[in-house]
Amino acid sequence: MHIPASPRWKTALVKAIDGTASPFQLASLDANSIPHVRTHLHRGFFEAKAAPHLPLIFTTTDIRTPKVTQLLAQPTVEAVYWIEGSGEQYRVVGRTSIIPAPAHPLYARFDPTHGPALTALKNEGVDWEKERTKSFDSMSAHMKATWCRPVPGTKLEGGYEEAKKWPVKLPKLGEGTDQEKHYLEIALANFALVVIDPLEVDYVEFSMYPNQRTKFKKEGESWVEEIVVP
Amino acid sequence: MHIPASPRWKTALVKAIDGTASPFQLASLDANSIPHVRTHLHRGFFEAKAAPHLPLIFTTTDIRTPKVTQLLAQPTVEAVYWIEGSGEQYRVVGRTSIIPAPAHPLYARFDPTHGPALTALKNEGVDWEKERTKSFDSMSAHMKATWCRPVPGTKLEGGYEEAKKWPVKLPKLGEGTDQEKHYLEIALANFALVVIDPLEVDYVEFSMYPNQRTKFKKEGESWVEEIVVP
Repeated sequence: MHIPASPRWKTALVKAIDGTASPFQLASLDANSIPHVRTHLHRGFFEAKAAPHLPLIFTTTDIRTPKVTQLLAQPTVEAVYWIEGSGEQYRVVGRTSIIPAPAHPLYARFDPTHGPALTALKNEGVDWEKERTKSFDSMSAHMKATWCRPVPGTKLEGGYEEAKKWPVKLPKLGEGTDQEKHYLEIALANFALVVIDPLEVDYVEFSMYPNQRTKFKKEGESWVEEIVVP
Repeated sequence: MHIPASPRWKTALVKAIDGTASPFQLASLDANSIPHVRTHLHRGFFEAKAAPHLPLIFTTTDIRTPKVTQLLAQPTVEAVYWIEGSGEQYRVVGRTSIIPAPAHPLYARFDPTHGPALTALKNEGVDWEKERTKSFDSMSAHMKATWCRPVPGTKLEGGYEEAKKWPVKLPKLGEGTDQEKHYLEIALANFALVVIDPLEVDYVEFSMYPNQRTKFKKEGESWVEEIVVP
């Protein structure tokens, strides 16, 4: 059986981020048609064994943030990686999926067969709840504690001091005191995966003189490359 | 006469970027309602002597890029600074103005009296063409040469090799050979300022435990601060 290769942009991106949780910026659109953008951390790729040409990028979020509503209303958005060290920029237009806990009302909005990449994963028996839990548990003790805070972005009546009452670190799932297990349950219920299915990648190499710029576009299940003016 | 102070977010941002041309990411909205985002370099602030409480952020662009059309259609967008060193994020919702050469057709779209910050600068006699030229001339020789390339993003028929025919560096304005002066003229004609008038700033300090998050909102000419959940 012929297994298609990884797209060239993915090989380059993997090399550029070099195993780190690289920051990238994710755009979204609000109900007033104002585009927003914030920093996320790259948590890796999902790809079916039979479909390495269709990698999905993933990051995570608190299901209670305004961007979740924004991404559900307009799932097609752009993400940008600016890699200082290698002098590269990757702009990825893609379709986002939000994967919260199965008990969360927004879980119903996740379509695990949207497009060939998700479908290929489903065909290979991906267990999204297992992936979500694994991703949560791989986070640092500090990060885990952030998902059991009050709703992000809401007014903190007691000021910065109020925040000192919240848990600072949480252990691995199944570990810790009863109180910590209670906090872990809350945190895990607020934790969601954000999966980006890339449609177009605009790759600029600023460290090359002259700069090189290449556009990759997914047509059907193939990536078409075009060299463009930087 | 009472001179209002700089907003606290600006003092913090100036300290965080520490005189560098810090990268930041600027969102925009295309005609299909897809939000886009790309990296820009922070080139500084404009503010009237009488209005340090109303700083404008500025960056630059090639007037021929798709984002210009996008920013003219929806000028209210968000920019984000992710400052790795200090562990800070600044998200700035603001209204953008594009300031090309006065001879460029899009110059007519620039309203130099939109809002109190631009108006205060106008009242103090700001010369936008002088600012644009000064900004252009302060760029590196490599950067200057980028604005006399063919239209950014268009197909490069000759591939990466084609780009080797373009000028690599350009001198200061008024210097160099006749050929270089010709290129400088083209580059300066394509060069535009992008000025962002901040309306809201969402400031998160990730290096503090617990993290601190503060929202600043411009109400009239005053900045109102609110401490929120990170």
